[in-house]
Amino acid sequence: MARLRVHAFTITLDGFGTGTDQRADAPFGDGVEGLHDWMLPSFSRRRSRQGSTPIGELDPSSGEGTGADDAAFRAGEENIGATIMGRNMFGPVRGEWPDESWRGWWGETPPYGHDVFVLTHHPRPSLPMHGGTTFHFLETAPAEALARATEAAGGRDVRLGGGVATVRAFLAEGLVDELHLVVAPILAGAGERLFEGLEGLPAAYRVDSLVPGGVGNAHVTIVRR
Amino acid sequence: MARLRVHAFTITLDGFGTGTDQRADAPFGDGVEGLHDWMLPSFSRRRSRQGSTPIGELDPSSGEGTGADDAAFRAGEENIGATIMGRNMFGPVRGEWPDESWRGWWGETPPYGHDVFVLTHHPRPSLPMHGGTTFHFLETAPAEALARATEAAGGRDVRLGGGVATVRAFLAEGLVDELHLVVAPILAGAGERLFEGLEGLPAAYRVDSLVPGGVGNAHVTIVRR
Repeated sequence: MARLRVHAFTITLDGFGTGTDQRADAPFGDGVEGLHDWMLPSFSRRRSRQGSTPIGELDPSSGEGTGADDAAFRAGEENIGATIMGRNMFGPVRGEWPDESWRGWWGETPPYGHDVFVLTHHPRPSLPMHGGTTFHFLETAPAEALARATEAAGGRDVRLGGGVATVRAFLAEGLVDELHLVVAPILAGAGERLFEGLEGLPAAYRVDSLVPGGVGNAHVTIVRR
Repeated sequence: MARLRVHAFTITLDGFGTGTDQRADAPFGDGVEGLHDWMLPSFSRRRSRQGSTPIGELDPSSGEGTGADDAAFRAGEENIGATIMGRNMFGPVRGEWPDESWRGWWGETPPYGHDVFVLTHHPRPSLPMHGGTTFHFLETAPAEALARATEAAGGRDVRLGGGVATVRAFLAEGLVDELHLVVAPILAGAGERLFEGLEGLPAAYRVDSLVPGGVGNAHVTIVRR
């Protein structure tokens, strides 16, 4: 059975998934500098591997891919057949698309390699990219988006990206099977809070584990009760 | 220089310091069962020591008082000369005191052993208890309460207890020198949030450390920049 998984979703110690004023030159907004520092070593390792060993085929004895940070980073890329994200994760454009020139944050070869379903109130034609990624734009409820993504995933799991509002919406409907959060050791003061208006969450979910990362961060796994 | 310290202030993973409907038989309200599980072993050790070795005079080689949980529990009792707390930490009574029969949660011998300043809009006469604790009831601003407590502390530090609103008020005014938080691996869904309306916090404070405890909790230290 395909599962809907959130991985590496990072919040500040005071609970914010993004800061204020998200925009093209600040995808996560202001006030959250260092939010993703925990994954920089993993990114470097991946970059140095490009063209050589694919992710998921590392030699565990090599010393690569060890530690909670790297394990968490890699887990989010294992057995994923489709991705769902909110429009704010796809780009900084709000409201009507002025044109179709915005093609995502990731350049012409996004790191997905599968169908990515972008939830938006402003649908546009599907966007095939290099490397197997196609962005589809859906104006649907979370459950319907999940059904579409599950079909596209062909038996593998579906990963739910951000932003904050998107994760909240799927959590509120109990659609998330596993939520891997990272708590970064920074304070934002303001922004978009993940745990807001989720009064029903404790009845459906529980914290399964909390383990420290390498930069004063913590990895938290939340699962269904 | 005397410092104002918060110790062992525990919040849920989703950010709540108390749940809903605080009352006499639920001092922290509903939805936060297990919030303080991390300190139960420390409490047991203290109880088993009563009448024998005072806290702070443990033999480190005995194995007692080790681990992040125990260390955090004990740190809150070291070099403290006075305590400040909000009225909600003193008791469940709200509004006017119907009489003076409520004498705190802690019985006739509270574990403070020094002057405790209770902030309230409904002052009442000071209340001397057994064991050196005297409760004083103040209707003052945080800075004035701190001045009173600092004087009473006689050169030692002042500990700021809860509840949530009290800690927030002192943080908002930048009066807290050190904030030791515990993040418990539970979800409350609703209640009183610690990091609410503290937009200015990141300018004045930073996260200094995050270390895991023994029950899936994390200890976080926040200090001035």
